[in-house]
Amino acid sequence: MNVIVGQSGGPTAAINASLAGVYETAANNNCCVYGMRYGISGLLKEDIICLNDILNTKMDIELLRRTPSSMLGSCRHKLTATPDEEYERIFCILHKRNIDCFFYIGGNDSMDTIQKLAKYGREIGSSIKFVGVPKTIDNDLAVTDHSPGYASAAKYIATSIKELVRDSLVYDTKSVTVVEIMGRNTGWLTAAASLAKGADCEGADLIYLPEIPFDIDACVEDVRRLQTSKKSLVIAISEGVRFADGRYICEGSDSPLATDVFGHKALAGAGRFLAGMLSEKLGIKSRAVELSTLQRCSSHILSLADITESYLVGKTAVEAAISGKSGVIAVLNRVSDNPYLCDTSLCMAEEIANVEKLVPRNWINESGNSICDEFIKYARPLIEHELPPIMVNGFPAHFLLK
Amino acid sequence: MNVIVGQSGGPTAAINASLAGVYETAANNNCCVYGMRYGISGLLKEDIICLNDILNTKMDIELLRRTPSSMLGSCRHKLTATPDEEYERIFCILHKRNIDCFFYIGGNDSMDTIQKLAKYGREIGSSIKFVGVPKTIDNDLAVTDHSPGYASAAKYIATSIKELVRDSLVYDTKSVTVVEIMGRNTGWLTAAASLAKGADCEGADLIYLPEIPFDIDACVEDVRRLQTSKKSLVIAISEGVRFADGRYICEGSDSPLATDVFGHKALAGAGRFLAGMLSEKLGIKSRAVELSTLQRCSSHILSLADITESYLVGKTAVEAAISGKSGVIAVLNRVSDNPYLCDTSLCMAEEIANVEKLVPRNWINESGNSICDEFIKYARPLIEHELPPIMVNGFPAHFLLK
Repeated sequence: MNVIVGQSGGPTAAINASLAGVYETAANNNCCVYGMRYGISGLLKEDIICLNDILNTKMDIELLRRTPSSMLGSCRHKLTATPDEEYERIFCILHKRNIDCFFYIGGNDSMDTIQKLAKYGREIGSSIKFVGVPKTIDNDLAVTDHSPGYASAAKYIATSIKELVRDSLVYDTKSVTVVEIMGRNTGWLTAAASLAKGADCEGADLIYLPEIPFDIDACVEDVRRLQTSKKSLVIAISEGVRFADGRYICEGSDSPLATDVFGHKALAGAGRFLAGMLSEKLGIKSRAVELSTLQRCSSHILSLADITESYLVGKTAVEAAISGKSGVIAVLNRVSDNPYLCDTSLCMAEEIANVEKLVPRNWINESGNSICDEFIKYARPLIEHELPPIMVNGFPAHFLLK
Repeated sequence: MNVIVGQSGGPTAAINASLAGVYETAANNNCCVYGMRYGISGLLKEDIICLNDILNTKMDIELLRRTPSSMLGSCRHKLTATPDEEYERIFCILHKRNIDCFFYIGGNDSMDTIQKLAKYGREIGSSIKFVGVPKTIDNDLAVTDHSPGYASAAKYIATSIKELVRDSLVYDTKSVTVVEIMGRNTGWLTAAASLAKGADCEGADLIYLPEIPFDIDACVEDVRRLQTSKKSLVIAISEGVRFADGRYICEGSDSPLATDVFGHKALAGAGRFLAGMLSEKLGIKSRAVELSTLQRCSSHILSLADITESYLVGKTAVEAAISGKSGVIAVLNRVSDNPYLCDTSLCMAEEIANVEKLVPRNWINESGNSICDEFIKYARPLIEHELPPIMVNGFPAHFLLK
């Protein structure tokens, strides 16, 4: 059997673990495994490699599981709603190469691609199976208990917050450190800042998610109140936080907003805006820290559950395709919290495609500036253990496609 | 004997390891060990704690060695050149508490404090010994082979660069990722970006240090040339890079410059400026990543040599004071590169105070946009091994002063 696999959307620390899961499972089933470079964009240019020639040893797989970003390269290519020549071209290439199964690892935009190709395939009577493997650091995918890629980002974020909290308390002066965390419409990543709090850490003092409209006056009042008993505060804020009127709070700043091909606004500056605003209104020192792309590509403090589960959804997707399923996506189901156990199942692509899962309102406190224990109970098991990097020459070793 | 220890200047990941070295060595010599909160500023307010009451177990010491930032708190307080009432007040407090030895862990500004207090003490016939324990992520201290605190920051920076390089290559489009790294006048930290290059990483494509005047046209030309064979580039740039006329390159941008009590300009924006400039001139996508304070406070990927040596300079300082020395600083001497061996000795405070060590010109390539093997040979042994964090509840555990 011939199968092809691609990666799409933004990089994560775990998307290559899913690639390893797809590859090993298919190879163990005697498949010839092709990889499309740069997702659908590369497929359309027939930029295709044979993974059986590249992933030769168990060590290659171990390294691939620990390598951040998308080894095959990625794209942000959206298929049109109504099938056009591009659909025809994709099927022409797949049929020419005798591809039996097509796997796409990505977020809800990529699951939309799976849905469209599976539907079109059925319509034209193609026997190719299309199966989705979910990933996103944003954790906003429906159906699945959590998204592969989220836990490693959450572990990196909370670890960094712990360190920034220690750093922030070093001087005996009033100050605010504002940490800007990714999350356009959902606050799952920013909520992970709450995990830093514990016996050895004061935690973030205020946490703002996009799920709650931002109120400048309430925030200034909160900072003023908290600083009567603690001079240095750490605030976690999502890049996508908006005012009640729908404007992003960084639109109050000087940062321009661009738009990507999916119509998403490219955000920057919520942290800088908030830090500047608090300095101005309260006359205190402030600093903005952006966790930037490091939060999605850091792989030296990987969540063990994340890497294991990312591999597992890849494996489940291959097994589904081999058993004849198409237009489905492998998802994670939590079996138990303590001990933490998780297994996989399948759902229809349309249940995930283009749907966004928000942080439930009752997991955020009433004032909208802190996170409740329900979230901690949900997220803690996901980050509890780590997959140690393989250290070579002083640094975590990666798998490099040459 | 009664001793007192303080921490000063910016936090590092290793300054608490030096505190552990001072504390354990003094305690093993039956000293009562006091800690001044927030350095000299706290001492002047008699904000003093007894460390023997706080650091009770070997586990406390293990955690302290792995805890970033300054456990005792820090300050940026500069003593006047000519002794004034503040000098009198410091000695009055030290004599009242029967302090025999005074240890100050800090950078060249703090070593200036040691020099001044030791000199003043001699003049007034005080028997108190003043000994300095060096630290700075900047690695700009004279005499010592390298500065305690540098190696852990370098290891974090190169690890992050490796990850950002993987992330940068994900799309099949021309782009530049500009990574801004700390370093006001010296490029030691930014040079560490060169360590990322290896069998599994393409490394940073261009590296700009403050030691070399920045030439916009040459940079644009370099990017254009490199992009004929590699679409996505990673550029490492020091926050303190300047034009030939002495202006910081971020003065070309809209970021305001503030000045701290030592007359240093607070920099921000070299990376943002460069990313914006390249986008404008070449019409390519660009992104600025600031490693921000995380590069000084990250402690989950500590250099083993750094933590060991930071402890050791603390120990050496205490032994020096007990043997009657004052006005001296414990420094590191490299004994051998392979295997890497390092020991300590003492130098006079005036040899380090207010002196800045630059990256040697011949460790930077002729064009001033890359780093030579001499630097790699120097820096590689410092980051080769790591002190693993003690993971509790999913995150590196810290020692918390309550």
